[in-house]
Amino acid sequence: MQHPEVLHEIVDGASSALDVRLAARSGALSSHTSGLASAHVQGNLVVLPQAHAGDFLRFCQANPKPCPLLGVSEVGDPSLPALGKDIDIRADLPRYRVWRHGELIDEPCDVRALWTDDMVSFVIGCSFTFEHALLAEGIALRHVSQGRNVAMYRTNIQTARAGVFHGPMVVSMRPLRAADAIRAVQITSRFPAVHGAPVHIGDPAWIGIRSIGCPDYGEAVELMPDELPVFWACGVTPQAALAAARLPFAITHAPGAMLVTDLLHHRLAAF
Amino acid sequence: MQHPEVLHEIVDGASSALDVRLAARSGALSSHTSGLASAHVQGNLVVLPQAHAGDFLRFCQANPKPCPLLGVSEVGDPSLPALGKDIDIRADLPRYRVWRHGELIDEPCDVRALWTDDMVSFVIGCSFTFEHALLAEGIALRHVSQGRNVAMYRTNIQTARAGVFHGPMVVSMRPLRAADAIRAVQITSRFPAVHGAPVHIGDPAWIGIRSIGCPDYGEAVELMPDELPVFWACGVTPQAALAAARLPFAITHAPGAMLVTDLLHHRLAAF
Repeated sequence: MQHPEVLHEIVDGASSALDVRLAARSGALSSHTSGLASAHVQGNLVVLPQAHAGDFLRFCQANPKPCPLLGVSEVGDPSLPALGKDIDIRADLPRYRVWRHGELIDEPCDVRALWTDDMVSFVIGCSFTFEHALLAEGIALRHVSQGRNVAMYRTNIQTARAGVFHGPMVVSMRPLRAADAIRAVQITSRFPAVHGAPVHIGDPAWIGIRSIGCPDYGEAVELMPDELPVFWACGVTPQAALAAARLPFAITHAPGAMLVTDLLHHRLAAF
Repeated sequence: MQHPEVLHEIVDGASSALDVRLAARSGALSSHTSGLASAHVQGNLVVLPQAHAGDFLRFCQANPKPCPLLGVSEVGDPSLPALGKDIDIRADLPRYRVWRHGELIDEPCDVRALWTDDMVSFVIGCSFTFEHALLAEGIALRHVSQGRNVAMYRTNIQTARAGVFHGPMVVSMRPLRAADAIRAVQITSRFPAVHGAPVHIGDPAWIGIRSIGCPDYGEAVELMPDELPVFWACGVTPQAALAAARLPFAITHAPGAMLVTDLLHHRLAAF
């Protein structure tokens, strides 16, 4: 748990990314990063021993929409200078998940004790950045205004296999009126590093989703009669592929407890 | 009618835009321009006396998606140097329509005899350019493969009024699978000078279209169960506003008989 006065300081959206990371590193911040340093790009984390890192890198390369790589560390190096000043990837996230043979065994706030010199870190873009761009353009997002997690679904779209990594694409869904859906395609196309354009618009059944009211992850959100469901590739895809691979050892971020990078959202705009 | 040997020479998609215009000017070409000089931008024509040209220019400026202006002539000047070498707008289209008080009174191949020194020409971008881009990206268009005119519909979307010009937006519809619809938004967004991104995707009723099987202009095209109807603003919008205004005098191109400009399609790409 964190001290309220510290939380107050860092909850400010204008706080620096480094402040958030240092708060996580000190243990003062141990929950979500949503809304913190809100101008800054946040990323999902996967840490793997070198033995599996090559396959995972190929998986991300082959599936850039669900697995957009923002950065990959040197082997054994806990820093990621391309993503931020003085990052210690072992401590700078508020909370981690530790996996052994596909089972979640711990949710620590620090993984320094588990670190070995063959670890490779992967930071993967997340939808916060494109949601920031959509909101900035005046496109309301119901799950945001309702304070819910976005609705996510397994699809019948298969990822391209790479070594032990494979599985269905997971998508997130945001209901939008048609004109906003068109504008959302334009806006999110500018952000290939954070899932890019939608992968589907319209009938959920066409991508194998049986019930829009029953998401496989996150929370359901209402779809109004004049709205289209718009689906984006989701960063849960590599998490699911990783879990299914049942590797001897892996570390990820805990849900919602992301790496806050020094990159500003607009730096990821392709044009 | 045209001599078959002349037609043969100019039907070649690689023919120059000037060749097409000269064939029209000589009378050898009096029918459609579809497929001619296929790398080149074609445009719709509206010619008005100066008394109404200001209102029409404002109408186009206020409604850029249905009325994307490629060029406007000097008053009385039949050339359009920005759009092509030695254009004589009074003769370089294969066929014209002449309107008096909103009534179609003639469809001549040449309007030099009707020209006065207060005439202003407007050339408006058409969907041929974005269709060229879609086809080049491998997105099949059913009306093209079936050799039909595109299906067009009046909507309940009102244009912004300017003087005597007003009326509903007319849209063209192309059925596409969702992934192609998303790609089509991206591709056509690059071409704001030729209608740009779609104005609607999905249920036709949301924009006031009662029956997708009964277009108001053009020909119906089948919508498959796994396809979305995708709607673009259409150059028939200004034609309909012009007809409704019942001006004392106006000249337009005849349907399908466009101005072939020297501009190459890719010159209109915004990025």
